[in-house]
Amino acid sequence: MKEKLIEQSILLFEKQGFNATSIQDIVKKLNVTKGTFYYYFTSKEQLLMEIHDDYITNLLDRQLKIISRSSLSQKEKLIEIIRLLIIDIQDHGSSARVFFRELRHLSEGNVAAIKKVRREFLENVKNVVQEGINQGEFTNTLRGDMVAFGVVGITNWSYNWFNPDGDVTPEELARIYYQMILHGILNE
Amino acid sequence: MKEKLIEQSILLFEKQGFNATSIQDIVKKLNVTKGTFYYYFTSKEQLLMEIHDDYITNLLDRQLKIISRSSLSQKEKLIEIIRLLIIDIQDHGSSARVFFRELRHLSEGNVAAIKKVRREFLENVKNVVQEGINQGEFTNTLRGDMVAFGVVGITNWSYNWFNPDGDVTPEELARIYYQMILHGILNE
Repeated sequence: MKEKLIEQSILLFEKQGFNATSIQDIVKKLNVTKGTFYYYFTSKEQLLMEIHDDYITNLLDRQLKIISRSSLSQKEKLIEIIRLLIIDIQDHGSSARVFFRELRHLSEGNVAAIKKVRREFLENVKNVVQEGINQGEFTNTLRGDMVAFGVVGITNWSYNWFNPDGDVTPEELARIYYQMILHGILNE
Repeated sequence: MKEKLIEQSILLFEKQGFNATSIQDIVKKLNVTKGTFYYYFTSKEQLLMEIHDDYITNLLDRQLKIISRSSLSQKEKLIEIIRLLIIDIQDHGSSARVFFRELRHLSEGNVAAIKKVRREFLENVKNVVQEGINQGEFTNTLRGDMVAFGVVGITNWSYNWFNPDGDVTPEELARIYYQMILHGILNE
């Protein structure tokens, strides 16, 4: 039931926003009582925190697995991180959109906790890029930190528009983006 | 006074969100009455619409000026569009953040009107990229429409994190991003 409450909330928060969704809206969809909700969560805010925490912790765990593979070059690590983020849209697109839009509805302490994990994710991308620059895999004419923001920008923005069931598959979109980032779009 | 009301609202909407900001909050900051507000706007929603409309129409006008310069190659047009978006953060960063976050608080008709202008902006980027592919300036191994979303993703995301008063200037960030998009980051 806890999973169902979370799933239903993500759909409602995505559609109507966190503020406009009441606990009553959530439990009504599942034909349960508010008592059921309060058995699992102390408040709507705590539920939102759980959605945020699940989402970002899952991505960070999978990113850490990629980074720890010492057989991969920095280029290969970057490709895998881009694939992770784009292909995840298919499975967790709604969670991601709620994550990006509703952060400010968390309490200050919770925002700080989530931002810490987000920063860690971004720092890992920066480190991969910087390591690639240091090792001569990537050009040293661009700042590693700014490039990392660019990579995260392309992938994060995709949650706003990409339809994984459309005529471009997530695998294909990931390929387009890592080729664009690695080789650029000029016909050279 | 109208301009002051708009400016103050943008700051408050950015800080506390549209929902949590009352007309009373806005007029109190300027030491005027609600009557003053209603002299210029019929509602808080109409004011938000004006913020959105000013923001996107201004960007579209400037984009159209770039596109209509027939002496520019598609590569040069793309560079100018990236510069337009990044350098605009310095002047209109708050408007942009309100624009991205608060769209859903507009009425359906207003959302449709704004989305139409956004789509036009995006279509223009797609056309520049596709024209560049057709003319052999850009590689034909990537889909023009997906590349356009990537370009817009990098630049739009910058509004979330870029501090134009930090140690990277807007001009420098624009250069990093158009070089990354045109040439890629590989050390080739």
